[in-house]
Amino acid sequence: MELLKQRINKDGDIKEGNIVKVDSFLNHQIDVELLNEIGKEFKSRFSLEKIDKILTIEASGIAIAVIVAQYFNVPVVFAKKTDSKNLDKDTYESKVYSYTKDKTYTIRVSKKYLNKGENILILDDFLAKGKAAEGLIDIINQSNSNLIGVGIVIEKGFQNGGKNLRDKGIKLESLAIVDSIENGKIIFR
Amino acid sequence: MELLKQRINKDGDIKEGNIVKVDSFLNHQIDVELLNEIGKEFKSRFSLEKIDKILTIEASGIAIAVIVAQYFNVPVVFAKKTDSKNLDKDTYESKVYSYTKDKTYTIRVSKKYLNKGENILILDDFLAKGKAAEGLIDIINQSNSNLIGVGIVIEKGFQNGGKNLRDKGIKLESLAIVDSIENGKIIFR
Repeated sequence: MELLKQRINKDGDIKEGNIVKVDSFLNHQIDVELLNEIGKEFKSRFSLEKIDKILTIEASGIAIAVIVAQYFNVPVVFAKKTDSKNLDKDTYESKVYSYTKDKTYTIRVSKKYLNKGENILILDDFLAKGKAAEGLIDIINQSNSNLIGVGIVIEKGFQNGGKNLRDKGIKLESLAIVDSIENGKIIFR
Repeated sequence: MELLKQRINKDGDIKEGNIVKVDSFLNHQIDVELLNEIGKEFKSRFSLEKIDKILTIEASGIAIAVIVAQYFNVPVVFAKKTDSKNLDKDTYESKVYSYTKDKTYTIRVSKKYLNKGENILILDDFLAKGKAAEGLIDIINQSNSNLIGVGIVIEKGFQNGGKNLRDKGIKLESLAIVDSIENGKIIFR
């Protein structure tokens, strides 16, 4: 997606360890206009699929999911990372290791909100080693709903998460794939 | 907001301790169409104010903030509840106690995304004792930006958060105020 790559080049902040920070427009401050363009792009990439629900994970996935959902006219469900007194006891659960936060957490979705036979599109802001996506897929499998595909705003192509999903035959659509960072310049696939 | 109250009556799940669970449409599964109606309503309630930015707090506040932001044409900033390797070191911070999670956490906003003189609207899904709102207001004050008002989807009128904010002269707009629950029936203000 050209507009997104331009924006990453313009406003992405390159940090040590091949990290491109996009918190000025994607995951701390959020440019809602850009998210709407992202929504149109995901809709065109999944235009042939019947989608019943979008599944994401808190926190920054939520922003993307709800704006994109407007183009599919479907509800969003987000997996919770923290236990809460108000969460149902009857949940699907999976364990996810986060490299950026260096901890394993349990993600949970109430059994009421993923139903057998529903067609689910997973959306998230980043894909690196793919642990969050794997956790969401595990939950979809437990619920006997159908994984239609995975939509990612920025894939870190130098890590193996994307390859693992594609090798399994999963339809993965990443709007920008960062293959490397060379001399302070981002190389997109 | 009549549509919201109807929806709370229809789909809200009344639990022990005067808790109305709305996770079928607001904070776990999300009805994006309803959020758009909520967006129009907030826009009309803050139509005379100049708003530069919407501030919320992860996680479920994000869904509301980004949809509502479309009606104000402004970016969203969300305060982070967890530390992350990717978050700037230079942040405004405040301590917030969560009754539903029974813990105190530090909320953080990068100093880059709240600027002196900007007009800020705080949005969140729930207001009970008002601790999250107070933390966000503390952060706004640290940044020398201007608090224009607070928009809440559901206020628990039987707790004191709303009264405290109104007593300070803050413009608080709550789309539904639950005053009590009597014999399984929700009494709105």
